[in-house]
Amino acid sequence: MKKHNFSAGPCILPQEVIKKSAEAVLNFNNSNLSLIEISHRSKDFVAVMDNACALALEHLNLQNKGYKALFLQGGASTQFLMAAYNLLEKKAAYLNTGTWSSKALKEAKLFGEVIEVASSKDKNFNYIPKNFNIPSDIDYFHCTSNNTIFGTQINSFPEVNAPLVCDMSSDIFSRELDFSKFDLIYAGAQKNMGPAGTTLVVVKEEILGKVSRNIPSMLDYKIHINSESMFNTPSVFAVYVSMLTLDWLKNLGGISAIEKINNKKADTIYTEIDRNPLFKGFAQKEDRSKMNATFTLVEGANQELFDGLWKAAGISGINGHRSVGGYRASMYNALPLESVQVLVEVMKEFERKS
Amino acid sequence: MKKHNFSAGPCILPQEVIKKSAEAVLNFNNSNLSLIEISHRSKDFVAVMDNACALALEHLNLQNKGYKALFLQGGASTQFLMAAYNLLEKKAAYLNTGTWSSKALKEAKLFGEVIEVASSKDKNFNYIPKNFNIPSDIDYFHCTSNNTIFGTQINSFPEVNAPLVCDMSSDIFSRELDFSKFDLIYAGAQKNMGPAGTTLVVVKEEILGKVSRNIPSMLDYKIHINSESMFNTPSVFAVYVSMLTLDWLKNLGGISAIEKINNKKADTIYTEIDRNPLFKGFAQKEDRSKMNATFTLVEGANQELFDGLWKAAGISGINGHRSVGGYRASMYNALPLESVQVLVEVMKEFERKS
Repeated sequence: MKKHNFSAGPCILPQEVIKKSAEAVLNFNNSNLSLIEISHRSKDFVAVMDNACALALEHLNLQNKGYKALFLQGGASTQFLMAAYNLLEKKAAYLNTGTWSSKALKEAKLFGEVIEVASSKDKNFNYIPKNFNIPSDIDYFHCTSNNTIFGTQINSFPEVNAPLVCDMSSDIFSRELDFSKFDLIYAGAQKNMGPAGTTLVVVKEEILGKVSRNIPSMLDYKIHINSESMFNTPSVFAVYVSMLTLDWLKNLGGISAIEKINNKKADTIYTEIDRNPLFKGFAQKEDRSKMNATFTLVEGANQELFDGLWKAAGISGINGHRSVGGYRASMYNALPLESVQVLVEVMKEFERKS
Repeated sequence: MKKHNFSAGPCILPQEVIKKSAEAVLNFNNSNLSLIEISHRSKDFVAVMDNACALALEHLNLQNKGYKALFLQGGASTQFLMAAYNLLEKKAAYLNTGTWSSKALKEAKLFGEVIEVASSKDKNFNYIPKNFNIPSDIDYFHCTSNNTIFGTQINSFPEVNAPLVCDMSSDIFSRELDFSKFDLIYAGAQKNMGPAGTTLVVVKEEILGKVSRNIPSMLDYKIHINSESMFNTPSVFAVYVSMLTLDWLKNLGGISAIEKINNKKADTIYTEIDRNPLFKGFAQKEDRSKMNATFTLVEGANQELFDGLWKAAGISGINGHRSVGGYRASMYNALPLESVQVLVEVMKEFERKS
C-alpha cells in the first residue's frame, strides 16, 4: 500500500533519490565498490562534496558573493554553539519563536550576553512576534525561520545592522527569499535536503575571524572553509543523498518551482482546517507555516474514528508534537500534493462519519 | 571483477551488511518506508540505537560495569575536544604516536596544561615510545591505540593512576583487551564498525561531572547519556549500518574470533614484506599494526611494474599516506584473508618479473 509520509523529520525524500542512494550503497559510480567503503578523499567522492556545495549555493543564488557552503556534522544543535563560538564577542540578540530558538539562545549564553528581543512563549509559540527592537551594538541577530513543532514561519525578516544568522533547518530550499540578506544560514539535512547526519552551513566569509577566543578546530568555520568541507571524514552517505536531492530540485526547476507546489499543498490543507467544523488550526493565520500545519480536533470530536481513518488511508507521521498535541502535517519539498489531498479527503470523510 | 579493498577508511564492510543496508534504504523492516525517511524517535529506530549501544558494550565486555555507549557525530576529531572539554580541569598527559595523537594534543591545549609524556616524532612515528614517565597529578592520560598512517599499534598500555582515555578509531573490535582498564574509549565508525558519519563513545560514568567549566550541551557526555544517545537527531543510516556490523561480528564469534583471522592476515603480509627482497617494512617490528601494514619498495625497484600488477589483480586503496609514502595495506575486520593472499601473490609475482 502506498504510504503518505507526513513525518516531521527525518522525513520523506524523493523516490528517485532513495532508489539512487540504495544503488550507490551497492555499487557507486560503477566502481564495484560501495559508496560507504571508499575513501572520502577519492576523486569520486570529492566530486560529490564539491557538487553538493555548489548546488546549495546555486539554489540560494549565492554563488560568487563571498559565501561558502559546508556540509558538517552534529545537526543544528551543534550550530547553536558554533554560531556563538565563532561570532559572539560581547552581545547577541535572539528572537525566540519556539523550542529550537530557545535552545539556540541557551547555548549562546555560555559565550556572552544574549538579549531575547521578543518571545511568543506567552501563547505557546503560536505566533511570530513583530515590531520588536533590536539593539544596535550587537555582534549578530539570530532567528529560526520555521518552527517545526508549533507550525509557524517567519514571513518578514527584520532589517538588522549586524550579521543576520538564521536556523533554516525546516524550510530551506522551500521558498524564494533574498538569501543575500543573511550572513550565516544553517540547516540540518533531514527535512528538505537529505537524511539525518549532515548539516548545511552557508556562511559569508567576511563575518568570520572577529572574535578574540581560541576556537577548537572542529568548531571553527574558517578551518572547515580552508579544508573545503573535508577537514575530517564527512558523513559520506548523508552528503551524497543531499547532493542527489539538490540535483532533483534543480531538475524540477529549483526553489521557484517547488515553492508553487508548496503553496498549493499549504493552501489545500489550511483551507480544509478552516472549513471543517471538527478541526481548528493551532498557529495564528498570518504566521502559518507552509512546511508544518498544526491542528487539533475540536472538543468532543471522535479522535479514535479520525485516527482509524487516516491510518487506513496509509497516512503516517501526523501525530502532533507533545508540546502542542493534536496533529501536525509536515509537507516538506518531497511530499507530493496527492498526499495532502488524501489527508483532506480523510478529514472530509471524518466529518461525514462523525 | 572482484575488488580487494585495502582502503584505510572509510573502508571495506561485510558484503552482507552492505546488502542489508541497501535494502533498508529502500524498505526498512517491511514498513514500506525508507530507513532514511522515518522519525528517529520511531519505535523501530529507537530499537536500532538501543541494540547498537548494547552490542558495543557486549563486544567490549563492559555491560553492567558503569559504562555507557553513545553514537555521536563529528568523528574522532570532535572527540579530541570533547574529551578535554569534559575531563581537563588542570593538567592532562598525552602520548604522541602520530598525526591523530598530535591533533588530539593540540585541541586539548585550549582547555588546560598538556604534558606530552613521549613522542616518536623523531623517527617519523615508526615506533611506539616505551618506558616514559606519567605525572601523578593529571586529570587523565590519553593515547591512540593504532596509528593508521604510520602502521604502528600499542601492544602494552601503561598503568595509570588517572582515567585512561583512548582513541581506538582504527582498531576497535579487532583484538581482545581488558577494556575495563579504559575510562573513555572513542572511535570513528569508518574502520571496523560502519560508514563515516557516527562515532562510538564508551565512557565510564563516574569520571564525568568533575570539571568546573560550563559545557555546551552537544559537547557534554552527560547530556548525551541522559538522552540515551538521542539528544538530537543522530546519524540514522550510519548508526543502523554500525548495528548490522556489530551483529555480523557477534554471529562470527565476536572479537576473539575476528582476532584470530586478523592475526593470520597480519602474519601473511608481514611474512612476505620481510621475505621479499624488493620490499621493506616501515614500522619497527615489535610495534607493527595488525590493521595497517606500511611498507615501501627498496631503492631501484620498479614501482610502475608493481603498481600495474596490483591494479590488474583488482586491488585498491594501497597507496601509502603522503606522510610515509610507499604502500599501506589496511586489513580491517571485514577484509577477507583471501584479499591479503592475493596481495602477497602479487608481491611474489613482482619479484619474479623484476
